[in-house]
Amino acid sequence: MSSLDYQDRRRLVTPERLHRFFGSRRIAVVGASDSSSWAVNLMGSLRHAGGHKELTFVHPKHNELFGQPTIPNLRDLDEPADMAFILVGPTRVEEILEDAAAAGVKNAVILAAGYGETGDDGRARQHGLAQLALGLDITIMGPNTIGFINAPAGVAPWAVATNRAPLRGPVGAVFESGSMARATHEFAQAHGVGSTLWASVGNSAVMTSLDILEYLLEDEATKSVALFLESVREPERLMELGRKSLELDKPIVAFKAGRSEEGKRSASAHTGAVATDDAVVDAAFRQAGIVRVESIEELVSTAALLGYHGRRPTGRRMGVVTSSGGGCNIIADLAVANGLELPPWDEKTVANLSEHLPPFASILNPLDTTGYGHARARPRPTKAEDDLMEIAVQDPGIDFMFTMMTPLPATRPDDPTFIESRLEILGDIVKNSPVPVFLSSNTCLDVPEYPQRLLASSGLFLMPGGDLAMSSLGSMMRWIDQRDRILARGKTAVRAGDDSAPAIEGAWAEDEGRALLASNGVPMVPAELVTTADDAAAAALRFDGAAAMKICSRAITHKSDVGGVVLGVDGSEAVHAAYERISTAVRRKVPDADLRGVLVSPMRTGGQELLVGITMDPTFGPVLAVGLGGIWVEILRDVSLRVLPVDAATVKDMLLELTAVSLLQGARGATPADVDAVSDVIVQIAQAALALGDRLETLEVNPLRVDGSVVEGLDVLVVTVGDKPAEQTGVPTDA
Amino acid sequence: MSSLDYQDRRRLVTPERLHRFFGSRRIAVVGASDSSSWAVNLMGSLRHAGGHKELTFVHPKHNELFGQPTIPNLRDLDEPADMAFILVGPTRVEEILEDAAAAGVKNAVILAAGYGETGDDGRARQHGLAQLALGLDITIMGPNTIGFINAPAGVAPWAVATNRAPLRGPVGAVFESGSMARATHEFAQAHGVGSTLWASVGNSAVMTSLDILEYLLEDEATKSVALFLESVREPERLMELGRKSLELDKPIVAFKAGRSEEGKRSASAHTGAVATDDAVVDAAFRQAGIVRVESIEELVSTAALLGYHGRRPTGRRMGVVTSSGGGCNIIADLAVANGLELPPWDEKTVANLSEHLPPFASILNPLDTTGYGHARARPRPTKAEDDLMEIAVQDPGIDFMFTMMTPLPATRPDDPTFIESRLEILGDIVKNSPVPVFLSSNTCLDVPEYPQRLLASSGLFLMPGGDLAMSSLGSMMRWIDQRDRILARGKTAVRAGDDSAPAIEGAWAEDEGRALLASNGVPMVPAELVTTADDAAAAALRFDGAAAMKICSRAITHKSDVGGVVLGVDGSEAVHAAYERISTAVRRKVPDADLRGVLVSPMRTGGQELLVGITMDPTFGPVLAVGLGGIWVEILRDVSLRVLPVDAATVKDMLLELTAVSLLQGARGATPADVDAVSDVIVQIAQAALALGDRLETLEVNPLRVDGSVVEGLDVLVVTVGDKPAEQTGVPTDA
Repeated sequence: MSSLDYQDRRRLVTPERLHRFFGSRRIAVVGASDSSSWAVNLMGSLRHAGGHKELTFVHPKHNELFGQPTIPNLRDLDEPADMAFILVGPTRVEEILEDAAAAGVKNAVILAAGYGETGDDGRARQHGLAQLALGLDITIMGPNTIGFINAPAGVAPWAVATNRAPLRGPVGAVFESGSMARATHEFAQAHGVGSTLWASVGNSAVMTSLDILEYLLEDEATKSVALFLESVREPERLMELGRKSLELDKPIVAFKAGRSEEGKRSASAHTGAVATDDAVVDAAFRQAGIVRVESIEELVSTAALLGYHGRRPTGRRMGVVTSSGGGCNIIADLAVANGLELPPWDEKTVANLSEHLPPFASILNPLDTTGYGHARARPRPTKAEDDLMEIAVQDPGIDFMFTMMTPLPATRPDDPTFIESRLEILGDIVKNSPVPVFLSSNTCLDVPEYPQRLLASSGLFLMPGGDLAMSSLGSMMRWIDQRDRILARGKTAVRAGDDSAPAIEGAWAEDEGRALLASNGVPMVPAELVTTADDAAAAALRFDGAAAMKICSRAITHKSDVGGVVLGVDGSEAVHAAYERISTAVRRKVPDADLRGVLVSPMRTGGQELLVGITMDPTFGPVLAVGLGGIWVEILRDVSLRVLPVDAATVKDMLLELTAVSLLQGARGATPADVDAVSDVIVQIAQAALALGDRLETLEVNPLRVDGSVVEGLDVLVVTVGDKPAEQTGVPTDA
Repeated sequence: MSSLDYQDRRRLVTPERLHRFFGSRRIAVVGASDSSSWAVNLMGSLRHAGGHKELTFVHPKHNELFGQPTIPNLRDLDEPADMAFILVGPTRVEEILEDAAAAGVKNAVILAAGYGETGDDGRARQHGLAQLALGLDITIMGPNTIGFINAPAGVAPWAVATNRAPLRGPVGAVFESGSMARATHEFAQAHGVGSTLWASVGNSAVMTSLDILEYLLEDEATKSVALFLESVREPERLMELGRKSLELDKPIVAFKAGRSEEGKRSASAHTGAVATDDAVVDAAFRQAGIVRVESIEELVSTAALLGYHGRRPTGRRMGVVTSSGGGCNIIADLAVANGLELPPWDEKTVANLSEHLPPFASILNPLDTTGYGHARARPRPTKAEDDLMEIAVQDPGIDFMFTMMTPLPATRPDDPTFIESRLEILGDIVKNSPVPVFLSSNTCLDVPEYPQRLLASSGLFLMPGGDLAMSSLGSMMRWIDQRDRILARGKTAVRAGDDSAPAIEGAWAEDEGRALLASNGVPMVPAELVTTADDAAAAALRFDGAAAMKICSRAITHKSDVGGVVLGVDGSEAVHAAYERISTAVRRKVPDADLRGVLVSPMRTGGQELLVGITMDPTFGPVLAVGLGGIWVEILRDVSLRVLPVDAATVKDMLLELTAVSLLQGARGATPADVDAVSDVIVQIAQAALALGDRLETLEVNPLRVDGSVVEGLDVLVVTVGDKPAEQTGVPTDA
């Protein structure tokens, strides 16, 4: 994360400035030496990319580098370079930036490590560097970055090894890890995935991953974005950019480690970031319309799928045609695992296909063309399976077509007529198909340059193996669902905290919590707060049936543990006895507790019990959790989460996501719950939590009882901090 | 599956015969033509492998093929070839086999399709082919196969495209899908995974995947086996070979599609096999000590890991050293997901590592060496991370070490000194390490030939990317656990069915089921079968507390649905009333039912309720299912399965596998169950089921009540077939 606030550094990282930054063609390399592997690799990358216009080496001692005369200082430039790529150690970086400013250089990449990642001293130095860049009006990337690759411009100041020209294509990619940026770029190149930009942000003293994301969303050539995050530092901005990406139909695909405690611990150690509950990250991404993937290979595969295929399927019904029976079975399993459907072929499709298959062939979806398929219009120099696919894409019951291909020749055959014709015809079949057609290889093998060129010239993109293809297709469908849902619903208004609620430090008494909920329209079980046994009996008389009695005190949050709860109390005598029992037990167990009295409520039984809680996430703020009570939350962790605010439709989604949803829907003889009514109440509970503003620590209604359309809270716990905590000051933590 | 019984074809497929089969060096190719792509590919594969001694083309019309003179018929061979590779269409195959026999040829590969995979006619023809081979004493592979690759012998009659010599190595691989055999071999070659044999069995008229598996287990050079199954046809033999593989320490890694209904449907269509519940396949593999993987890439990666690394870790504690912070976080997440542990480094290790890292470095596991690590004994021409790993492998708290490497140079550099020295030193570090060391690349990129050679000559094997590496390491640990468990326990004796139980067709009455269980030692709640209300009342008096009363009839399996159950009946009057209520209701709802009376039992409450069921799987026979009652089975499908027979230790494993196990262990205030006692009773229930032999259809004890150490069955349903069903006769179904 940047050492500066977004507002401060904003003018250095506008999309316009970044456009100039990434387009830098005249590059001054400062501090290179012939023997440094960074410099050697940088030279290799620039040479492979081939689009830089002018390269100047700046070195005070070497007169010549890489066979070229040097200048001793940036100030000796005849005219300003577009960018300085600074290879010097951390002690000399500031001096070089001063030189750059003096020479009119507006952009710099800083390779040096030894800043924010090294502890407090390093963070202070990084902050100083950022301040300096701001003062000098220089946009800096890094420190601790390997640079970037702008394939369309042919500019690749990228200080790690490359072995060929970077591929141009629709994917923009930003990485908060240099080594993973490198690994992932190599994987992308090996699979013919081209990019508009591949950037490693390093420590992000000034330029952050979100700045680049914003730039990529505005960049016309970028059709999808791959985002590798180590932490989430500007959550609100991320959510906004997510929404913008949906409006622009530019999917953001994100990888973020930290699923496990071990992963979070590791990530915190490397970034200094606060560890957010990973389930909250999941929820936030879903709400932002960002599709999350599970591996860096999947990051490439999914961003490529979404970038190369502007035609989005309108549903999950997949047709499959392939020449491998074993492949059919594998695809069928993977389809189900990834939420894709395999409808049977339409009658007409079966008839049309059967004309070209032997009588005994099983015409199923997935379709195994076996070796028997004969071409529809032979002699066409193409494969039978492609012709059969051309028939099958006409099926009215599918939303898209998928096929898995055996590897194409690695090098140009002596007679390339057949393969080149086949690919051309296949390109036409795909282009003319009424539904999108997705292709993959059958395992995750590299695609050599010859087939990469063949595919590209036919307008085809081959996903890296059946497994990645199916998980990427599943992610695409999740993204489409999220997009439709989010765009249909509009933005949920954010409710600001207000000062009407009492300023309590710590836990509230239950009656205080009830008052807060009531003032926000949350239906609660009736309750009277009494301070004598007689009043308790009188209160119980006003209800039908038995009563529930609970001690009421800020000091007692676990009422049962201190004997503060008696349930199913029936009749005046019993109420008197229960009152005394509670009073005696509580006085003995917590003698110092400040007691407000006993709450007397009608006893409730039956229905389903929900747990509705709002807690403060260190990154995303108030987060709503909803689940069913008992084993569902305690043992099965069957909980659905969302970052607040939420609307009722979103809460309904949350309920539908629960494994236990079938109980709400009437499984095992339960009365089906009125899910709309429940959702409305949960929104009101969330509103009550938001009303507490930054003072909120926890608000939990447990249980929220649901019986058909009757919804009411039976108990509530509110915990607040007395004062809003001071904003963190001083030197921020850095990535 | 073979068209012949194993006993019939056994002499054709003994390990000795298969050794000769796969070692065939003098090959006669029958029916090739210069223009057939099968023939062209076959010639290419044979040429790349380079080890065949003599190649004869047999063709009645072409005088010359591939620049070589032909003979018109196999009978014209001067001396018998080792093998005939038969490329002719299905109509001429039998004639060629006759020729082969006449010429003394003992082995044949049959490419032609159009047999068992095409329906009843094809199956009949395949059966005829198998009978012919048996009569002629020719071992045949296929029909519908692409052949095999024997890399150590340099023999590759493999009728699909290859582009280099097959790699020798420790993995033996057998595939029931030709296209997947091909795809997987390409993936293996691309990752430097060498083999002893790579075989596609095709339709298995004679030689099956299990025959080859048995051969591979006896082959000294084979250290692990990759098995791609479309179906399981000889379950008992598979289980036996599984056990043998454990005794020999030759892990079997298996991929089998059919996880989903769609996958099963697809596989059944392609193989004609009966679809077995996939959860049963999982259970059977686990019991056989076969480790199951989820993708064909994982099949290669896992078999390679287990084949290349004879040193097995003794536990799950993994040390990780890598030069990528982002990589550390990813590995940490993957480790947890795959059941691996990441203990903190020992104090001494921290001290030793810290000598070579800057003071601000976080010395965590996974260890990010960053760019700061300096070599332990510089100047050694190696990387700092390798030296740091050499220190970390000494940690006494880890069972194995893992490291992820950035890609090695694709081609030999002008000056290879550094890289070649590095790999040599790394090889020594790994060899001398006190714990096994596993290496992977950071993404699933192909490994070009130069780095493959470098790695091989240093005795190193690189797994294909962090994801596959971690899932393969997880599979390895599962395999080790299974091996230890199975070998420690010995074989469970198989109980044969006996004729003591009544020969009932369909459902048994509850008292009949109770008698069966009682005679097998299963504790049941007491029950008296009565036929008058007075007797019912008298029976109830003999128990303390309330009674449970249930109608008893073979015709009524869902007693509650017909009003045949009354629970919590307290006092003689109530018993009388309940008896009448049951009688009236049942007589009205099922007037024709033959009633045996009413069962009167003491009412039980409290404790946990288990469901214990045994059903007949079409492939594996009797399968035991155990789960907790209520939502656990109905909604969560939280059930553990094993193929019978099982011992008590295995049943205990089953209980411990359940998500609901925490309830048995006392979660949420429950009395902890005596798991040993429960396991013993479940074994007795399984014995009761086995006593029914082939007549068993279902035996279900539901619920089996467990309250601390009290275990008793409350209800039982037994369903049998009246007669043992006739053995399937006629032409078997083929793969």
